[in-house]
Order: sequence, then C-alpha cells, then structure tokens
Amino acid sequence: MDIKEFVTAKARDARAGARDLLKAGSDRKNVLLVKMADALLEHAGTLMEENAKDVEYARGKGLSKALVDRLTLDEKRIKEMACGLREVAALPDPVGEILHMRQRPNGMQVGRMRVPIGVIGIIYEARPNVTADATALCLKAGNAVVLRGGSEAINSNRAIVGILRDEARKEGLHEGIINFIDIPERQAVMEMLKLEDMIDLIIPRGGEGLIRTVTENSRIPVLKHYKGVCHVFVDRDADLIMAEEICLNAKVQRPGTCNAMETMLVDEPIAEGFLPKVLKSLEDKGVALKGDQRTREIYPGIDEAGKEDYYKEYLDLILNVRVVGGIDEAMEHIATYGSAHTDTIVTMNYEKAMRFLREVDSSAVMVNASTRLNDGGQFGLGAEIGISTDKIHARGPMGLEELTCAKFIVFGSGQLRQ
Amino acid sequence: MDIKEFVTAKARDARAGARDLLKAGSDRKNVLLVKMADALLEHAGTLMEENAKDVEYARGKGLSKALVDRLTLDEKRIKEMACGLREVAALPDPVGEILHMRQRPNGMQVGRMRVPIGVIGIIYEARPNVTADATALCLKAGNAVVLRGGSEAINSNRAIVGILRDEARKEGLHEGIINFIDIPERQAVMEMLKLEDMIDLIIPRGGEGLIRTVTENSRIPVLKHYKGVCHVFVDRDADLIMAEEICLNAKVQRPGTCNAMETMLVDEPIAEGFLPKVLKSLEDKGVALKGDQRTREIYPGIDEAGKEDYYKEYLDLILNVRVVGGIDEAMEHIATYGSAHTDTIVTMNYEKAMRFLREVDSSAVMVNASTRLNDGGQFGLGAEIGISTDKIHARGPMGLEELTCAKFIVFGSGQLRQ
Repeated sequence: MDIKEFVTAKARDARAGARDLLKAGSDRKNVLLVKMADALLEHAGTLMEENAKDVEYARGKGLSKALVDRLTLDEKRIKEMACGLREVAALPDPVGEILHMRQRPNGMQVGRMRVPIGVIGIIYEARPNVTADATALCLKAGNAVVLRGGSEAINSNRAIVGILRDEARKEGLHEGIINFIDIPERQAVMEMLKLEDMIDLIIPRGGEGLIRTVTENSRIPVLKHYKGVCHVFVDRDADLIMAEEICLNAKVQRPGTCNAMETMLVDEPIAEGFLPKVLKSLEDKGVALKGDQRTREIYPGIDEAGKEDYYKEYLDLILNVRVVGGIDEAMEHIATYGSAHTDTIVTMNYEKAMRFLREVDSSAVMVNASTRLNDGGQFGLGAEIGISTDKIHARGPMGLEELTCAKFIVFGSGQLRQ
Repeated sequence: MDIKEFVTAKARDARAGARDLLKAGSDRKNVLLVKMADALLEHAGTLMEENAKDVEYARGKGLSKALVDRLTLDEKRIKEMACGLREVAALPDPVGEILHMRQRPNGMQVGRMRVPIGVIGIIYEARPNVTADATALCLKAGNAVVLRGGSEAINSNRAIVGILRDEARKEGLHEGIINFIDIPERQAVMEMLKLEDMIDLIIPRGGEGLIRTVTENSRIPVLKHYKGVCHVFVDRDADLIMAEEICLNAKVQRPGTCNAMETMLVDEPIAEGFLPKVLKSLEDKGVALKGDQRTREIYPGIDEAGKEDYYKEYLDLILNVRVVGGIDEAMEHIATYGSAHTDTIVTMNYEKAMRFLREVDSSAVMVNASTRLNDGGQFGLGAEIGISTDKIHARGPMGLEELTCAKFIVFGSGQLRQ
C-alpha cells in the first residue's frame, strides 16, 4: 500500500466533509451529536468486543497497567463518551457569530464572522475516549477531523469511528466529516503532517515526546503545550491560611495533571513563619519535598532541589520549594524555569497582584486561586480540546471558540475605493 | 563568521528586549515612536547617503526600474516613514485590554488580557520603508522585532535601524527591542526560521516566491497570504449600474495590488444585457480581457480564458470573465480557483447576500462593495502589517490587535478545585 496516497485520500475526504459542514446549521449538527451518543450506547457490546482485542494485544506486549487501564472501555466509560457527546450538543454554537460590526465613514458596515477552521488533525495516544470527545468538539464548531490515535487502540477506534460515520451518513451528511487513519505505520503520521493544503490545524494530545515529534515534523500549524511546570508564589502580604489551602490543593488534589503545582516559591520575610507548617501538611499528604538551601535551613531533612529540578514536570507527589527575595525574583524564576502554563500569586497587596497578572507571561495567570482551576470547564468554556501555551491563535484552555476563526465581512451599498 | 551563532545572538537580544517591553506602558512606547520619527527626519541626509550606495549597487546589478524605485529613499519617503511612526503612536494601545471578565459559580472572576506576542520576525524585500513601518506596529503592540530585509537594501536598513536603536537606548529601553540581521547570506534566513524557542511569529512580506520559501522552511508559525485571486460575482438580482462601478473600481483603480479583481463572474440571465457595456468600459480603461466560451459568444474578439488563467494573480490590467449559472456555480468557482483573499457579491437579493457571506470561505467576504476596500485602513484597524489568508490566529488584514495574544487571568479569593 502507498501510505502517502492512503493518508492523502483521507485528508481529501475530510476537505469534502468540511465543505458540507459549512452549510450545516446548528440544528443538524446537534441532532447528529445526539444520534451519535445513542448509537455508541446501542453498540456498546460491539465496542467492548473490539476493545478487548486491543487490551489483549496490549497486555501481551507488556504495556504498563496504567496504559492498559486508559485503553480499556467498559460500560461506564462508554456511557461517559455518550454523555460527553450530549453535553457538546447542548453548548452554544460559535459558528456564525458576528462580532464588532461597525460603520465606516463611507457607510459600509465592517465586522467579523466566526467560521469553522476547516479540517483539524488530532494526534493522540491509546485513549479511545479521545476519539469521541475530540470529534464532538470539532464537529460542533463545523470542522471535519482526521484522527490518528495510538496504534494500540486501533480496533477500538475503528469501531467508534465506524459508528459515528454511520450516523453522519444516516443524517445526510458527508461521511468525510470524520476520518480515521486506520493503519498502524508511523509513516502515516509523517505524511499527515505534510498535508498543509488539506489540513488546517493539528492538535496533538499526549506526552511531551509525542508532542515534540509532531511539532518538529509538522508543516501545518500546531496548537499544544509541552508540559505544565506550574508555580504558586506566596507573597509576604499573603493571607497565610489561604496560601496553605491553595498550595495543598494545587499539589495534592490531583498531582498527575498538567495544572498541578510543581514548584512553590515563598517570600523571604514570611518563610520562617509559613514554611514549617505548610511543609508538614504537604508531607502528611505524602508529598516528597525538595528544597533550596534556605528552605532546608528552615525545614531540615529534605532533599536538595537542583536547578535541573526546577524545569521538571513531576506529575507526582513531589514538590520543589524555594525561598525568593520578593515578587521580582519570583517572576524571574517563573520566566526562567516555567512552561508558561499556569502560575498563581497569593497576596493581599493590590499593586503586586496587578503586576503579577500583567508581567507573568503564562497562558493562565491567577491571583489567590489554585492552579488546578485552569481548565475549560472551570473557566466556563463548556469543554476543552486541550490547553495551549502557544502565543498564536489560542493561549490557555481551548474551547469551541478556539476551533473557529473570524473572517471579515462587509455589508456595502456600492462603496468604491477612492 | 558562524552564521547560526550570529543570528541566534540577535534573537536572544530580541528576547531580552521583549521582556523589557512587557513592562513599558503606552506612554513610554508612544514617546519612543515620536522620538524615532523626529530622529529619522533629523538624519535624513545620512539616510539618503547610505541609500545611494544601495541604489548604485542595484543599478549596477541591473535590477528593474520598478525594483530600484521601491528601493530609493528621497525626502518625501523619509517624511512618510516619520509620519507613519507618528500615526502608530496615536493609535490606541491594544496591550492590557481585559476581555470578557465573568464570574464563575465559585466566585472567581475569569477573563482574558491582551499581551504582546513576544518576538516577531519580519522577512521582506528591498523596501526600506517596511523597516520603519513594521517595527513601529510591532513595538506599539509590545513586541521586539528581528528584521531581515532584502540584501539590496542592507545599507539603508542598517542606517534606519541604527537611528531607531539609538532612540530606544536614549529612552532607557533595551536596544534588543529592534534587531536587524545585517549580513547578506541567505543561510541567515534559514537559521532564523529554526529559532522557534526565541522567535514567536514570522511575518513575510513580498512576492509569492519569498513567502513560499519562508513557509516551507519555518518551524515558527507564519502569518501570510500567497496571492490575491479576488472575484466579483454579479448576481442576476444586482443593481447593474452599481455592479459596473464596482467591477471597474475593483479592476482598474490600482491593478497591481493584492485586492484587485482578477476574475469577474456574471450570472447567465443578465450576461447578455450586462456584459457588452461593462466589457467595453473595461477595454476603454486599457483592460485586456479573457473570456470563457459564453462570454466570447456575447462579446466576440477577446482571448479565451483557460482553466489555468483562473488561478492567476495578474497584478495587471488583465481580467478573466466567466458566465456562471447562478450563485452555486459562482461559489464553486471561487472555492476551486480562488486564494481566499477577497470576494464580493453584487446583489439586491437578501437571501443570496447572506448565503455568500456565510459560505464563501475567504478572509474577506463582501456584499456590494469593491474588493479594493479590503485594507486595514479602510476597515478601521488604523494600520496593517499585512493580510492573512490563514485560518489560525488572524484572517484578513492584520492590525495591532493581531500582533497580540490573549492570556487567561483570574481574580480569585482563595478558590480551590473540588
């Protein structure tokens, strides 16, 4: 088989699907999403059968328990997928929104209209739920998808996509609105990343390695974050009870997520009073601490945090602790070691709060709130397709709006250029 | 000299400049822009001397008259550059704008704040005025620049950048806010395009060849348009006097620009009545016509328009004319042959106007207005750094707002993730 031709045919099919979707109104898209949800539940048996093949193969290959768990589809997870599709159907449709329509001196009205991006490529690991979740968000925003899931989930993904495409066809839409690269060869991804005339945007979801490979090889724009090295800076003017609650929540509420805190920065004047209590609480919750020299003077017996540690995304119950000489040193630390994901200041000082918001160049910057709250749902976007630490197109959690673009429109009455 | 190291050092300098600019408020940026304008006028003599070296070299190399003209700096052009800087100083500053701040159920306020993108690379041809114009827009939006102008203008650009950097230093800002790759080697551009950790965005300005080279070799996001193959579709329900005015204006008012009409599409039921008069008027203005078969039946004696002609950006007094069987065929033609730049429908039919606006997937879609009006100034953006036909980040003319991104900000009062 010619892999390049195979992938190109899928992308071409997606382009045709995207043109069809451009004409579909909200009602048709919403009806389709609800029917897709029903169909997934109806075919739950088949889905679990196909998934069992993948799980057996993964076990045979010796994949870790965590990976096998993420791969597995049971009734509960299929219900969750269906539920996700229904939730997306219920969200407001961003397409067609007209923004900032203003009258120019010559009488023409100029503004913007939100339109779909076109064709979106999603590259992800062996998590079959992403197949349905990502497809739903893209379709709702009027985009066709080219999906490329981890090869360990190929049978599960093929079954899910088959069901979704059947529903699209039954609703009279072009099946090309959903495409799945159902061959395991790695070359398929490389070919996909070269199709800049057919695919408008790539969203990779997974570990840092996958994302780096995609970014380095793509000729198509990519929206992504590599990792979440998130900070909480406890300023000398903080409410220390609030600071302790925020630090605990940011570290232990779910340490395996990209918005969990990895380094706590504490202002020198309060370090002696604040650190012993909060570090004890963190240790009680099972957190392994690494401290700079000053932290270890105040709270002896913990490991040393080296410079290389400050770059790390632990995704685990491990925390760096560093004492800094004020907000400038804290912001310098964040600019040097951070990943522009989520950073919080805890303070009651108005001026420092405003400076931190303005000068910290991260995708989400917070005052007096846990980093764990950076999430499309928590921020009110409805659902998110990922978090971007890029500076182009989207910065922070990406919802339906970030899956559209805004073209210019003009209502004229015969205006000419003078 | 190690070219890679040379270019990397410039980009690193720009990063430091960008950090400094992050703290500079509107006042400081505006004062700097006005001082830069004054300094260009003050040093007009030196600028013309340096420019004379470039012009002499270009003439010796046998460059076309048009290219030499664009390269030349006289007093009038230096005044225009200075004037441009002052106009940018007078525009509202997009940085710091807070958007859509909303309260979430847990009481935290979530919204976005416009912030600079960071470091912007501008790659352009031998037009020294771009050096000042592009720098002004980037600085106003808080971004540092790495400039790479055509090698024929190297002495002029070096002189301009020297003057601008002097002013930056005098105003107490980091000189790295303006960087110029002042070596002629092509490899310098290739090295620049690999620095995705230091440069956030590339904007190429120039011909299609330059832009394709940049896009194909860049690992940094690029905003651009390749060409402007713009259409006017004269619908059967058009006001034919208005249609004739719009078609004439779109073609002849300034044919060498990217928003000039290249193909006129005329609805079959009005073709016989409309074409003879408008084609005669176009010919009277010196336009060479190419028609499809039906057009040539109605208006014999003109050349045939082949399929390959429909893809062409003539940038000249040449026009394709095609008769189509209604709005669907017109939109199909635009989707097939167009470049997603600017397309207009002339009609008095409400339903077709709304369909055209919604379904034509171009960066600017107009009803009853000349394509020549697609321009940052005409659209009210103040000034433009270019036009994007991309679908990511910016679509259509790009003003100051498109030189920023919007991060999320949170005003909390101790919120935690449940």
